[in-house]
Amino acid sequence: RRRYDAPVTQKKLAVIGGDGIGPEVVAEGLKVLEAVAGPDAFETTRYDLGAAHWQRTGEVLSDETMASLAAADVILLGAVGAAPGAKDVPSGLLERGLLLKLRFAFDHYVNLRPSKLYPGVETPLSEAVVGGRDVDFVVVREGTEGLYCGNGGTFRGGTPAEIGTEVSINTAYGVERVVRDAFERATRRRNKLTLVHKHNVLVYAGGLWRRIFESVAAEYPQVSTDYLHVDAATIFLATDPARFDVIVTDNLFGDIITDLAAAVTGGIGLAASGNINPSGAFPSMFEPVHGSAPDIAGQGVADPTATISSVALLLEHVGLLDEAARVEKAVLADIAARTPGTKRSTSEIGDAIAARVSA
Amino acid sequence: RRRYDAPVTQKKLAVIGGDGIGPEVVAEGLKVLEAVAGPDAFETTRYDLGAAHWQRTGEVLSDETMASLAAADVILLGAVGAAPGAKDVPSGLLERGLLLKLRFAFDHYVNLRPSKLYPGVETPLSEAVVGGRDVDFVVVREGTEGLYCGNGGTFRGGTPAEIGTEVSINTAYGVERVVRDAFERATRRRNKLTLVHKHNVLVYAGGLWRRIFESVAAEYPQVSTDYLHVDAATIFLATDPARFDVIVTDNLFGDIITDLAAAVTGGIGLAASGNINPSGAFPSMFEPVHGSAPDIAGQGVADPTATISSVALLLEHVGLLDEAARVEKAVLADIAARTPGTKRSTSEIGDAIAARVSA
Ligand SMILES: CC(C)[C@H](C(=O)O)[C@@H](O)C(=O)O
Ligand SMILES: CC(C)[C@H](C(=O)O)[C@@H](O)C(=O)O
Repeated sequence: RRRYDAPVTQKKLAVIGGDGIGPEVVAEGLKVLEAVAGPDAFETTRYDLGAAHWQRTGEVLSDETMASLAAADVILLGAVGAAPGAKDVPSGLLERGLLLKLRFAFDHYVNLRPSKLYPGVETPLSEAVVGGRDVDFVVVREGTEGLYCGNGGTFRGGTPAEIGTEVSINTAYGVERVVRDAFERATRRRNKLTLVHKHNVLVYAGGLWRRIFESVAAEYPQVSTDYLHVDAATIFLATDPARFDVIVTDNLFGDIITDLAAAVTGGIGLAASGNINPSGAFPSMFEPVHGSAPDIAGQGVADPTATISSVALLLEHVGLLDEAARVEKAVLADIAARTPGTKRSTSEIGDAIAARVSA
Repeated sequence: RRRYDAPVTQKKLAVIGGDGIGPEVVAEGLKVLEAVAGPDAFETTRYDLGAAHWQRTGEVLSDETMASLAAADVILLGAVGAAPGAKDVPSGLLERGLLLKLRFAFDHYVNLRPSKLYPGVETPLSEAVVGGRDVDFVVVREGTEGLYCGNGGTFRGGTPAEIGTEVSINTAYGVERVVRDAFERATRRRNKLTLVHKHNVLVYAGGLWRRIFESVAAEYPQVSTDYLHVDAATIFLATDPARFDVIVTDNLFGDIITDLAAAVTGGIGLAASGNINPSGAFPSMFEPVHGSAPDIAGQGVADPTATISSVALLLEHVGLLDEAARVEKAVLADIAARTPGTKRSTSEIGDAIAARVSA
């Protein structure tokens, strides 16, 4: 409910904790959000969704809930997904029925995933690879089409002659808008953009991406561009991640390389993401890249940093730029102050970062 | 031509040098092959194929050449592919028309890619990740279906409403045979097999892979199995590659993770592969994982080690197990003797390994 004296700029925030560690990390994200923006900047509505909700109600995401979510300005999501092999939860039910449904219905065509190797963060890469180098790039992953479109099927299912198909649909409309967004971001960064695809094998989709990329590039002479096949991109992420500034790629390749990017810049405990609809026609959604991690749920040991960094992206998206910068700075300071080998609980990390943004 | 006194076991070897550094590295592979197996073990026929051949003749791979290749026992291939943006060479022409055509026509359903971090090899991973650990695994990549099947198209091509599709076709027949092969390999190694897919999003293809994997697993109680989504697999390849023994995965995921696997175990200069038709109905084909690297072609600086290791896989495939082991041992010794920072030419490395196998 809106307070009688709430500022007119109060934003409607929908919160989906989800499953596993989702609610735990989201609690810390909200703690930091309130500490930086005050108690009245957002009007928060919580939505109980995910595996447990489905098991209790048989509903993944009702039309009513969708309509209510659509009225929000912005969404913060923890993670959804049951434990692998959890009784009665079919594979993909929550991913396709909830997470991807939101991304598609709210037209989140820019799936933004920054990767920055903060000083003091442990990386699996050697000193020779990252020492003294500035690893700081962002992946613009297309979020609404490609192999994620859910177009496919099973033929002769369950027989020895079963065929399973998956169709990747790529449209000039969908590719151009995300490529443009990536060029714009490159101009606000270091003016370097890499297209990642596999056009030597996926000639139809890859040809489309490549032609559109080249034609938009002509409008941005200040941006230097290059192209990498997705397999080669994984090599560079492991051997020379500092070479990247902005990467633009399709939905599936983006999924794969952003997990690798997270791994080389300190792990998915730190990786933030925004599912953005730049037009503002639908609410954008911010979430950590990691999953629900059912194996460590309920123990208070999950690292909420990725969610807190996602809150920074959320603040930036709604135009609270100072607040966003303060959260980012607090995260950086907290990470720099970490002692390798010392474990803090989920809420201790949240408290520490909240204290820094209020200070 | 077969020599009048050739042993009856003489094998027909088809050699495709290809483009760029392909012919250079293949020359060293053949040098080592002759050194270890003698001049008469193989009857060698060379095929001039690739970008240059196409530019000269307009032909990628004629039916006649295909028929001739089909009569070989085994094929050694360097690499094909023109320089990026090379005049008149459409993207995918050689990949789809030559390399993938051979893999598909000769039913190379086991694309075998071993990754081993040899002592002395530089890795981009930190000592904390690989120090004292045995990184030694093999990826069994499906080679004949999935998103590589070439089934897709362009609709409204060249208009602002263009749509590009790619269809991934996965059959129970195709999945089961490669999964079985992977289980068999696991029993000859450390009895551990990981399935890599993305069944939470690609529910039709992923469901098929998962069900077949689980049903074949029931026949191999001695093999411990697990499952990773492809995005998570890239994380583990960067943070804990020693956890893997055998990985089985589809064509596209296999393409991506084997480049990353190569990167973390010393680079694609070392990564060997076999495109195997286990039935023997068609010739199997052995090739380095790397491409034609047009940027360094003709300079004699390409590392032929991956091709020489591919020759070891070739020898193993044709049953020359002692010879295969000798090549592997020579490669290992050569690598161990390398001085970081000292560069040898392509032929110097070939000579050194050839000398070791003859010694
Ligand atoms: C959970 C899954 C559907 C999702 C994806 O594949 O996009 C996740 O891996 C991610 O990267 O956000
Ligand atoms: C050149 C290309 C078609 C090929 C592939 O994608 O399979 C290569 O990347 C490989 O891994 O052998």
